[in-house]
Amino acid sequence: MIRLTLIGIGTGNPDHLTLQAIQALQASDLVLIPLKGEDKADLAGLRREIIGRHLTGGRVRRAEFDLPRRDTADADYLGAVERWHDAIALAWSAQIARHLPNGGQVSLLVWGDPSLYDSSLRIAARLDSPVTVIPGITAIQALCAAHAIPLNDLGAPVQITTGRMLRDHGWPAAVDRLVVMLDGACAFQSLPPEGIRIWWGAFLGMPQQIRDHGPLAEAGPRIIKTRAEARASHGWIMDCYLLQRV
Amino acid sequence: MIRLTLIGIGTGNPDHLTLQAIQALQASDLVLIPLKGEDKADLAGLRREIIGRHLTGGRVRRAEFDLPRRDTADADYLGAVERWHDAIALAWSAQIARHLPNGGQVSLLVWGDPSLYDSSLRIAARLDSPVTVIPGITAIQALCAAHAIPLNDLGAPVQITTGRMLRDHGWPAAVDRLVVMLDGACAFQSLPPEGIRIWWGAFLGMPQQIRDHGPLAEAGPRIIKTRAEARASHGWIMDCYLLQRV
Ligand SMILES: C[S@@+](CC[C@H](N)C(=O)[O-])C[C@H]1O[C@@H](n2cnc3c(N)ncnc32)[C@H](O)[C@@H]1O
Ligand SMILES: C[S@@+](CC[C@H](N)C(=O)[O-])C[C@H]1O[C@@H](n2cnc3c(N)ncnc32)[C@H](O)[C@@H]1O
Repeated sequence: MIRLTLIGIGTGNPDHLTLQAIQALQASDLVLIPLKGEDKADLAGLRREIIGRHLTGGRVRRAEFDLPRRDTADADYLGAVERWHDAIALAWSAQIARHLPNGGQVSLLVWGDPSLYDSSLRIAARLDSPVTVIPGITAIQALCAAHAIPLNDLGAPVQITTGRMLRDHGWPAAVDRLVVMLDGACAFQSLPPEGIRIWWGAFLGMPQQIRDHGPLAEAGPRIIKTRAEARASHGWIMDCYLLQRV
Repeated sequence: MIRLTLIGIGTGNPDHLTLQAIQALQASDLVLIPLKGEDKADLAGLRREIIGRHLTGGRVRRAEFDLPRRDTADADYLGAVERWHDAIALAWSAQIARHLPNGGQVSLLVWGDPSLYDSSLRIAARLDSPVTVIPGITAIQALCAAHAIPLNDLGAPVQITTGRMLRDHGWPAAVDRLVVMLDGACAFQSLPPEGIRIWWGAFLGMPQQIRDHGPLAEAGPRIIKTRAEARASHGWIMDCYLLQRV
């Protein structure tokens, strides 16, 4: 019998880890460590740091393996994602069968929180094993904490969305605050900036954290420049932002 | 010089605490412990448990004090909230002046995450001291973890809102998933239930955690009953839910 635990590890600060996450990690028999084969060395580094810090006994097995890649040339985007998730589930199963032939507790470290724009739950569902989720600090909370701002206005709604949605559909109706994630191209540029404020952050929680905020008309161009420079110098970037319409 | 740290403590499970939260707590000179004077004894109990577990040295001072009450008879709702926050800021200041006349590091334990439907940041702004925020696990993450479900559909937006907003304005346009918080009266009853699924949870993260899910037409009436019973037997309740429109 295999049991899967998806452990949210927060967004780059090893101290985002909760006590519950540490306990789950230490209670596992096997930790899966998928390698992305990208130049996001800092991300793999965080997982190794967490494991090195909290799994000192040597009892818990670790399996590092290369993640299958998504076929980005496939014109059927959703179909390609489904097939990619199938392939990842097979890769997990192969590692589990190899390292835990008699069953046990398998853990996966998930960036941020497993519920937020992450595929691990959908992949795990393919394995037909019971799944436990340990919540983790999300990029949204890291963003609000970095700026010491509330996510919502008093009693008001807030929408969490993606760069693609913002670019293709504009500002959604009936909400004055938006969090934008998964935005590779500063989709805020598609908005008329008047009356909008932005709070932006990249590498939130990490030593290289940067942030900026202000009226979109002024802060927007600054952020585009800072982001391009930071991306060039680090080789990668992860950023998100909160927009408020007044 | 006074420095304020708002520490997110998660939603009822003492193991929701992050390492960063523990470090911030241990680095403080004074912890403010406002008492709500309500029968939410479990909530004050969680704060005491956290403090008892992680502040063992006796170096860090603790100040328990009664929170001023909001004038619920005041017809000017927003004005009353402003005056209430003013009064709380004064209560904090009085405790700080008394316990830390020479300045230092003051911490407040905040339920969940300080950015989400919480007034601490707005109250702290009245004190004119630098404010640091330590993120914590929110009820939203505890809800998704309890059900092992993603918050969002693949690449799709999600809106976070309140019971009052849902009741007064109905289902917001252009979004198929809603998280509803601060709902004292099961506002989902105001929706035509066809085509809607609900994932509900109360006391999330706590020993008395309960949850239910299913098509709203079937699960809705069940949840109303369970909620009323749980509320009667515990004397209070905290719940939230995710709605999905298909
Ligand atoms: C695939 S999603 C995963 C989100 C993650 N599960 C969470 O809970 O935050 C990746 C997106 O999250 C945001 N993100 C994650 N970590 C971040 C960080 N440290 N700083 C800024 N944004 C981050 C970015 O918008 C990025 O495009
Ligand atoms: C004033 S808000 C504070 C939210 C908190 N700052 C957070 O991050 O979750 C209180 C609302 O959060 C939700 N909530 C908080 N803790 C909860 C729990 N343990 N179980 C279910 N809902 C909870 C309920 O909707 C409740 O009405």
